[in-house]
Amino acid sequence: MAGGGDELKLLGTFASPFVMRAKLALSFKGLSFEDVEEDLANKSQLLLESNPAEKKVPVLIHNGKPVCDSRVIVQYIDEAFSGNGAPLLPADPYERAVARFWAAYVDDKVLCHVLEAARGKTEEEKAEGLKQTLVAVETMEAAFKTCSKGKPFFGGDRVGYLDVTLGGLVVWVHAGAALYGMRLFDDAKSPFLAAWVERFGALDAAKAVLPAVERVVEFAKMRQAQAAAPATAGGN
Amino acid sequence: MAGGGDELKLLGTFASPFVMRAKLALSFKGLSFEDVEEDLANKSQLLLESNPAEKKVPVLIHNGKPVCDSRVIVQYIDEAFSGNGAPLLPADPYERAVARFWAAYVDDKVLCHVLEAARGKTEEEKAEGLKQTLVAVETMEAAFKTCSKGKPFFGGDRVGYLDVTLGGLVVWVHAGAALYGMRLFDDAKSPFLAAWVERFGALDAAKAVLPAVERVVEFAKMRQAQAAAPATAGGN
Repeated sequence: MAGGGDELKLLGTFASPFVMRAKLALSFKGLSFEDVEEDLANKSQLLLESNPAEKKVPVLIHNGKPVCDSRVIVQYIDEAFSGNGAPLLPADPYERAVARFWAAYVDDKVLCHVLEAARGKTEEEKAEGLKQTLVAVETMEAAFKTCSKGKPFFGGDRVGYLDVTLGGLVVWVHAGAALYGMRLFDDAKSPFLAAWVERFGALDAAKAVLPAVERVVEFAKMRQAQAAAPATAGGN
Repeated sequence: MAGGGDELKLLGTFASPFVMRAKLALSFKGLSFEDVEEDLANKSQLLLESNPAEKKVPVLIHNGKPVCDSRVIVQYIDEAFSGNGAPLLPADPYERAVARFWAAYVDDKVLCHVLEAARGKTEEEKAEGLKQTLVAVETMEAAFKTCSKGKPFFGGDRVGYLDVTLGGLVVWVHAGAALYGMRLFDDAKSPFLAAWVERFGALDAAKAVLPAVERVVEFAKMRQAQAAAPATAGGN
């Protein structure tokens, strides 16, 4: 499966943490891919046909066959290209279960509340989102200590499934600091995660696919301006 | 791992579709387990210690080590007891990805909206939940045809990961008909899923662990009565 004949195409948007996650998995497995930037206001026919149930990015198209949902994509890459470099998921069933549990936690508790804090309809909703985010980060901080067992990554000495899953947030940790003056993982409250962000972001395989922080900040500012502008100024 | 020395304990509540899912996986893999019924109003110390991050059921405790999150539990059972009977997940990476995608869809789109329809704070919220549920069921109906390829189960000729995931809803399809006069999967709009419910529910391994419909209906009526009663009548 890891031969040069494989065609890999990733439909995504550069600022999405879910898309970054899929790109990180491809990069850490040493796979090159065609990076197709979607316009979510005008989705391509290929995206609509590849993910008819959810019409969302990322979608990985491998030799014409679509795989949807970022965590499913990461596991697919690990299994379909098992011959390429080190596996992302551990071999031991129990360790796999622990990694899968925390990967789900990142989406259901961390990312979900981060989005609530950023996009909440009322100040009350935003405050609740922020509060829940901080609880989830505190829990993740404790989990990091358990999973990493004193090693530099959740996966131990090398990057694994949970690192890649959380890796989609690394650029946003920096962007959040620039935009809101607040770090999701800070040195005082979550020193292990704060150090992990620096360590992960410095890896060549991460740098190869993660967008520049400035680009994500510019994008977020543009979206905020669009949201604040009267509807008539919104264009398409 | 499949030896007689394994101690398996499942912390759950009998009416939860997520708990039923874990029980179904154990049953289809031919594993016996201690069924520990939790009182969610007064959670056991064992539950709080076994799932400190979410404090939710189901939790599978295997030789003293806890595994949390129902879909993670099903995959763990499949991997830890790979020597026990047929695997739940397919061998092919692409088919595994398809099964995982639809299993996530069952939770994020079907079950999520069913709960919204049942527990929404306003009539508007309930109506929206019901509307979204029907859209999701229509999509699942089409997915069943794709995944099963004309075979009786999502897993093909035998029950697989997606069957077990959706299997947690089988009793509730019947209970919903008794409670609300509405079937989640009905013969007119989703004939494949309606037939699958009957086929799945008739299997010995399913009957061995699924609760009687009447018991679930009684439980739901009691919960409705509690919710409708003044707070002072609620007891503890």
